[in-house]
Amino acid sequence: MASRDKLDRIMSTFTIQTRQRSEMQSITGQIQAAVRQGGIRDGVVMVHVPHTTAGITINENADPDVVHDMLEQLDRMVPWRQPFYQHAEGNSAAHVKASMMGSSALVQVRGGQLVLGRWQGIFFCEFDGPRTRQVQVTFLAAASPS
Amino acid sequence: MASRDKLDRIMSTFTIQTRQRSEMQSITGQIQAAVRQGGIRDGVVMVHVPHTTAGITINENADPDVVHDMLEQLDRMVPWRQPFYQHAEGNSAAHVKASMMGSSALVQVRGGQLVLGRWQGIFFCEFDGPRTRQVQVTFLAAASPS
Amino acid sequence: MASRDKLDRIMSTFTIQTRQRSEMQSITGQIQAAVRQGGIRDGVVMVHVPHTTAGITINENADPDVVHDMLEQLDRMVPWRQPFYQHAEGNSAAHVKASMMGSSALVQVRGGQLVLGRWQGIFFCEFDGPRTRQVQVTFLAAASPS
Repeated sequence: MASRDKLDRIMSTFTIQTRQRSEMQSITGQIQAAVRQGGIRDGVVMVHVPHTTAGITINENADPDVVHDMLEQLDRMVPWRQPFYQHAEGNSAAHVKASMMGSSALVQVRGGQLVLGRWQGIFFCEFDGPRTRQVQVTFLAAASPS
Repeated sequence: MASRDKLDRIMSTFTIQTRQRSEMQSITGQIQAAVRQGGIRDGVVMVHVPHTTAGITINENADPDVVHDMLEQLDRMVPWRQPFYQHAEGNSAAHVKASMMGSSALVQVRGGQLVLGRWQGIFFCEFDGPRTRQVQVTFLAAASPS
Repeated sequence: MASRDKLDRIMSTFTIQTRQRSEMQSITGQIQAAVRQGGIRDGVVMVHVPHTTAGITINENADPDVVHDMLEQLDRMVPWRQPFYQHAEGNSAAHVKASMMGSSALVQVRGGQLVLGRWQGIFFCEFDGPRTRQVQVTFLAAASPS
């Protein structure tokens, strides 16, 4: 069994602040920092949101127009108001989009570095902000070949 | 190499019965029970469906109206009938929705407990029921910091 | 810490060639081959695309009409042209679809075999081809029960 201190290094949480109702915020830098602080050399990092109106996705980190177009297209597919929505909080669209993006993403870590494709970044997807949000980071062990 | 008995504790399967064509059924209780039976204290649980017209997602477990609104909105986005569907079984919409939700979800386990956000539950998403379905549960090891 | 050679067995990459703008290509055979070459008996395989206009999904591998219907339906939901798209490369739809399918998939490995449902196959989802693409394969360790 790992000690509590060891566990805190392989299972950590950080906070972000979102500014819009819908927003994709790059958290690649924070995840790379967590890899460094966790002292992980080789394995996989799992990035998870403990929320139900926000998600995690990996997509293009170069041209901010990609994020604009993605958020706009998601809004067309999942309108904020629908005559059949019953949930009193009025944020059902955010729940749908959260499940479409998913609650976690996985990235390989090798030699202490995230192994991302050239254009890939890790994004926190806010769909019912602005809010203060948590991001969980967990390090998974690679298998040993027999 | 783990013994067969040990493997059966870290890779298990349970059965659920769905009742509707489209349905999100909370399986949080069954997953927490599998964590207990598996004797896992710290790591990650992977919940997987071995089906192609059902998925797994994490979303709100408090107000059942959220599930109603999500299923209805998915139906609007992915109509059950489309003039261009060719698949003879007639359930192409269910295949699309299954891939949109994804075939697995991951949840951190710490101290023998699922680490879920306050509103999060784990849902089996049936899109072509009613059927008898399987859910695979696999425990993943956390990495050791160097 | 694993040796470089061991790491190359548990974290490998292969190349595929896509032929269409939108295409779902089964890579189940290549993943099973990677399991064999990696010498992994029990654990989980993570299949990841290091791209932002392609994804990975698990869906039906029997009737090719399912793939036809899925790609067509994704095109209806996420049109290639939208008046509000700003991204100069013109492939915003591919970015949206990539995030809808997700950048990785997980499959249990037991006794050196992928544990897939009867109809399940692992698909590389091309949304802006034809291109030469990479697929990352990483083996994750199963937890040990206490």
